[in-house]
Amino acid sequence: MSAYGLHRVLEPAGVLPQQAWRLDADPVPAADEVIVAVERLNLDAASFRQLREQHGSGAAVRQAVLDIVAERGKMQNPVTGSGGMLLGTVLEVGPESPLGLKAGDRIATLVSLTLTPLKINDGLQDWDGEDEQVPCRGTAVLFGRSIAAVLPDDMSDELALSVMDVCGAPALTDRVVRRHPGAEVLVLGGGGKSGSLSLAAARQAGASRLVALVPTEKEADQVRKSGLADEVVIADARNPVAVAEAVGKQVDVTVVCVDVPGCEHGAILATADGGTVIFFSMATSFSAAALGAEGLAADVEMLVGNGYVPGHAAFALDLVRTQPGVRALFEQRQTA
Amino acid sequence: MSAYGLHRVLEPAGVLPQQAWRLDADPVPAADEVIVAVERLNLDAASFRQLREQHGSGAAVRQAVLDIVAERGKMQNPVTGSGGMLLGTVLEVGPESPLGLKAGDRIATLVSLTLTPLKINDGLQDWDGEDEQVPCRGTAVLFGRSIAAVLPDDMSDELALSVMDVCGAPALTDRVVRRHPGAEVLVLGGGGKSGSLSLAAARQAGASRLVALVPTEKEADQVRKSGLADEVVIADARNPVAVAEAVGKQVDVTVVCVDVPGCEHGAILATADGGTVIFFSMATSFSAAALGAEGLAADVEMLVGNGYVPGHAAFALDLVRTQPGVRALFEQRQTA
Repeated sequence: MSAYGLHRVLEPAGVLPQQAWRLDADPVPAADEVIVAVERLNLDAASFRQLREQHGSGAAVRQAVLDIVAERGKMQNPVTGSGGMLLGTVLEVGPESPLGLKAGDRIATLVSLTLTPLKINDGLQDWDGEDEQVPCRGTAVLFGRSIAAVLPDDMSDELALSVMDVCGAPALTDRVVRRHPGAEVLVLGGGGKSGSLSLAAARQAGASRLVALVPTEKEADQVRKSGLADEVVIADARNPVAVAEAVGKQVDVTVVCVDVPGCEHGAILATADGGTVIFFSMATSFSAAALGAEGLAADVEMLVGNGYVPGHAAFALDLVRTQPGVRALFEQRQTA
Repeated sequence: MSAYGLHRVLEPAGVLPQQAWRLDADPVPAADEVIVAVERLNLDAASFRQLREQHGSGAAVRQAVLDIVAERGKMQNPVTGSGGMLLGTVLEVGPESPLGLKAGDRIATLVSLTLTPLKINDGLQDWDGEDEQVPCRGTAVLFGRSIAAVLPDDMSDELALSVMDVCGAPALTDRVVRRHPGAEVLVLGGGGKSGSLSLAAARQAGASRLVALVPTEKEADQVRKSGLADEVVIADARNPVAVAEAVGKQVDVTVVCVDVPGCEHGAILATADGGTVIFFSMATSFSAAALGAEGLAADVEMLVGNGYVPGHAAFALDLVRTQPGVRALFEQRQTA
């Protein structure tokens, strides 16, 4: 079980690192661990907002982060429960680490700071507490089952991180579309980050008809120009009847990338019996999905979008490299 | 779209029957509809509780139900949003109905009252308002995509309804276990209704190792006596580490039938990479499942337990008929 970092849990005993109050952040690697020299923390937006509201000034926010990490051995906001991720350079690799990293690799962690043992060594002197991006010198520990991705040298950190942030979606879309040869595929929210990557993944996996549903004419125009979809339709994803009418013939695979509540029924209604709906939106309601499919007597498979698929970061970065339409949409977003 | 009953929606226009404020309950069937002579309504427990709290006396609760159905054309509690189901006899079948019913069939609806057009004709004179079971003369409408099951004549209505209430679980378990030949299967909450049916379904589908996890020694004893599982282990399903330790070697398929929050991480941890977790509990948190799998770098497929699989009621009733262990557990529950 040490691959999950149980041996790093100090308090309470016997829980997983994410649920723990306090972790052991000692920067000496166990046989399957990796030690990282931290360069930057990216605080979760909800966590940073809460810290600002509670503590006010930048200096006070900085002290709050220092206190949390000193007390808990990880940067998990005790109010929001959320963390963030980090960038750094691999310092030391235990002999049995399965992560495939070597000293000197520049990496981003794709598991949350809420379960990552962390030590801060510079008092956060280079951070004014006014921004979620925290320059930081310190050390972090990756477990055997942690996920970290090497930052590519052919694109900016900013673009790479933005892609890695949603890289589970295209990898799982790829896997599911390949199970339905010649699938017709619908992506709700096809103009967003995970949506555009999912469109590109579906195309590459052999989708025979690719429909992007977006909320506005402006976004429709961007997706049309990207060439990522065969059809671009405009509808409110929260309105099941409107979604079904906009899509027309039911599809085999529907990918939900719209981050607002209430998109479950439209996704189900747009999907043919025997098809699959993948929910990537964190706004998905489990009971709305389960009861909706039952109420509509829809024999569709519904997947909780797992953010982890082996190789997902490299897969998503490759889509950005090889499909100019995806890169264009990402860069437009960064400019906007 | 009429198979979903859109033509029965009076207000607001353009939404699905479940979301509608008011339905047309006129007992004249469209071509693909079925009219049912209602015999009994089973109100959803949460709805009945709310009505009791708001209205107090049985007579006032009865009047409240009459008022809701008169105003909305369906029995959907406006506060809880929930409904229930009904029993009745098929009165008339439209020529294009795909449901396979004929006049005179005694049936139970497996779709919610929240989307079933309903007219009450007897003023609920035989109901004292003190019980969720409502004797009722009236009419209901089933759509092309509604789900209704013929009540079997070889078991009591009570037992049949209790089985039908959870019949999606064994049907989906069957389908998923057959995808993993020789699968090792874990059922969290193996002593409950959906849990015991899922164990029986997994056995029939060829599971090579069948583990039931239950919370107490008493329940363990019942499941052991039923013979439904190869191994019966006791652990708190909300404690991931305890679940993983109790189960030992990871399984290929985990079925979650424990109706308490917080069972996502244990289910994920107990499942091998490449395996599948099916969540049937309505207490499942979408985000806990999604983020949990990511945090544990677990390459498991996670399914939202769809309550509808074609033929699910007949399948579950057959399990009760052919597997004495299931029937024994159900009957113990009814006695208790």
